[in-house]
Amino acid sequence: MIDLPVKVKKYGGTSVGSVESIRSVAQDLASEHQQGIQQLVVVSAMAKATDQLLDMALQITPRPRARELDMLLTTGEQVSIALLTMAVHELGINAIALTGAQCGILTDGNFSRARIQNIATDKIYKFLEEGNIVIVAGFQGITSDQEITTLGRGGSDTTATALAAALKSPVCEIYTDVDGVFTASPRIVSDARLLEFIGYDEMLEFAASGSHVLHPRCVEIASKYDIPLEVRSSFHHRPGTTVVREELLEKVAITGVTGDAEIARIALMQVKDIPGVAARISKSLADANVHIQLIIQGIRHDQTNDFSLIISQEDAQHSQDILQRVSQEVKAQEIQVDTHVARVSVIGSGVASNPGVAARMFQALADNEINIQLISSSEIRIACIIQEDQLDSAIRALHEAFDLSNLERKTISTA
Amino acid sequence: MIDLPVKVKKYGGTSVGSVESIRSVAQDLASEHQQGIQQLVVVSAMAKATDQLLDMALQITPRPRARELDMLLTTGEQVSIALLTMAVHELGINAIALTGAQCGILTDGNFSRARIQNIATDKIYKFLEEGNIVIVAGFQGITSDQEITTLGRGGSDTTATALAAALKSPVCEIYTDVDGVFTASPRIVSDARLLEFIGYDEMLEFAASGSHVLHPRCVEIASKYDIPLEVRSSFHHRPGTTVVREELLEKVAITGVTGDAEIARIALMQVKDIPGVAARISKSLADANVHIQLIIQGIRHDQTNDFSLIISQEDAQHSQDILQRVSQEVKAQEIQVDTHVARVSVIGSGVASNPGVAARMFQALADNEINIQLISSSEIRIACIIQEDQLDSAIRALHEAFDLSNLERKTISTA
Repeated sequence: MIDLPVKVKKYGGTSVGSVESIRSVAQDLASEHQQGIQQLVVVSAMAKATDQLLDMALQITPRPRARELDMLLTTGEQVSIALLTMAVHELGINAIALTGAQCGILTDGNFSRARIQNIATDKIYKFLEEGNIVIVAGFQGITSDQEITTLGRGGSDTTATALAAALKSPVCEIYTDVDGVFTASPRIVSDARLLEFIGYDEMLEFAASGSHVLHPRCVEIASKYDIPLEVRSSFHHRPGTTVVREELLEKVAITGVTGDAEIARIALMQVKDIPGVAARISKSLADANVHIQLIIQGIRHDQTNDFSLIISQEDAQHSQDILQRVSQEVKAQEIQVDTHVARVSVIGSGVASNPGVAARMFQALADNEINIQLISSSEIRIACIIQEDQLDSAIRALHEAFDLSNLERKTISTA
Repeated sequence: MIDLPVKVKKYGGTSVGSVESIRSVAQDLASEHQQGIQQLVVVSAMAKATDQLLDMALQITPRPRARELDMLLTTGEQVSIALLTMAVHELGINAIALTGAQCGILTDGNFSRARIQNIATDKIYKFLEEGNIVIVAGFQGITSDQEITTLGRGGSDTTATALAAALKSPVCEIYTDVDGVFTASPRIVSDARLLEFIGYDEMLEFAASGSHVLHPRCVEIASKYDIPLEVRSSFHHRPGTTVVREELLEKVAITGVTGDAEIARIALMQVKDIPGVAARISKSLADANVHIQLIIQGIRHDQTNDFSLIISQEDAQHSQDILQRVSQEVKAQEIQVDTHVARVSVIGSGVASNPGVAARMFQALADNEINIQLISSSEIRIACIIQEDQLDSAIRALHEAFDLSNLERKTISTA
């Protein structure tokens, strides 16, 4: 065992998207190495590599099996760790590339959405002790049966956070192509503000609500093991956004506005009001690995219910097929699928304690003639399902209504 | 254990070079599967994939370490097995892709030139019993320490033959982009003849002498375990060349002519005639994994020797560096390196028993004003080192001198 803390870093696809970027990352790693900092570096596939692999698979079959798809896609990260390690060697510094399997990232056998079950850290410590920068393939793991698995979307973030937890790392730095987490997407809101700090739960809602900066699973792990995550750009050295426990932060009503257009709404109309119907619907989708983001049940006059489900757009076709089969059992009269919907959410640890937030949100949308189709709320989020083509104007309206361009978020100790 | 014999097939890079070719290979596999034939299929990286990966590595460093290079290059085969397996699935047939590690191909730790030490066949038999076509990544293996290795040039042929040996397969079919083994390269000799049969030793000489149809290591393994190899094209269904034991074949003086321009000649001039010099030179190169194809020592008047070494062109620079250091120890006066040389060889099981072969060869070269720099001969081969720019005309002259366009080669039983 080693005494020094290990810094865990993760570089996303655009950060290692070209030979030039890989060299630049290697320089950054070298300069920290020369300061005596021990580093474990998780790397994604080079930008576009995963898409190119997926494209080849889809040319061969519209429905590749998950096992072979995982085997295909994991080559992307294997390529980038080999190249980054070579680039570090070229600077005269010891480094070693490890695949998920070599790094001992043991997962369950759920191809394409595997969960990490255990990480064997002895090999990592051995290589660190020998003075290596350890460079690990993100997104991938191996089962006890030597099957190659992937952790699903954003899996490299998950790899990094899980490794930071296993190594009891003081911080996990997530390097990406954005500067950090903003009060809203800077592509939509020109005066969106970079958040210096954000809480785990808020970040989780950001991730679940359409912000692609961090994957929810990674935030969950960081929260569970209390590891600060720092999201920052690999293209400059300015600090980004640090994700920490909410209790360390000053309370603010609203931290940011997010939008997600990649959703679909499925409505099951006039379902007979008999017990267990909602469970039957949920189970049929869960069995097919479809994540239901929201399920809302309204009661009609004639003892039937309407069910509205929000799922990700990519699951829409598949879910419709499943629900067609289920609809006879639950005696639904009709199934409607709408992919032209979007969700706009306001997020903040003060939502629950500020009853005025909801009213202000609905008013701002109404003032902009945006019709709300469905509403859901949690302790720290209010989300509205609206028409997809009104999403950007909804985000701008809410950012202004909550005056987020003037938001100052501080930690309690520095307040 | 299963009773039926397993047919082992290997597809080269051009045979799986595009989505279209992959589909066509899958069709061929499916049609044999439907005839009840059990198949284990070894696949190379898609044509150009390995070169593209190597090119990226060389953009990062002129001298990538072998460990990371192996990690990089093995992704090529992992991609092709995943895609081919998907293509078989698409035809409604069970198939499973296995990496070298998953297939239990255990090697030593000699990165970039690893040797197979053992193959664990239980997983293969299990998947075959379940009705799968088993599709294995060629060229790669794993050490007992989970390090990813490659078997060097032509490694996929080696994988296939080693698997055929482990499975006691009645035949190993090597599918490639040529029709089989010819009496000379059809690109150089227009009336070169496809050999229906060839002996292992002859094939080994073909491979060692510049024919890239099969890798020597693969022929050695086939010979050791007495497995017939059939080299054939994946682009049509005509039979190719079957490689068997020499004893099964009618004797002919010469079976073919090969040329190799990828060689270099290193001369150490005026080396002091003291014992152990040749050993010292050989050992220094062997330690650096340089294969000496030929070493010739001539005695000069003044009690010094000249040594001539033939090595592959890619080893030339490296070998020169090594020999510069050694030259002081062995008191060589000068080192000359010539990469503009080539080797032309005539090969046949009847070389030793037909003393006239050598004379006819030298005469044919002389008639064409081709100067011979060095000569070496074995039981079944005579090789001459000549100027590189005379190679093609040498091949044509020898093909004609031995009347190879009229060669008929039969097995003894069918004679």
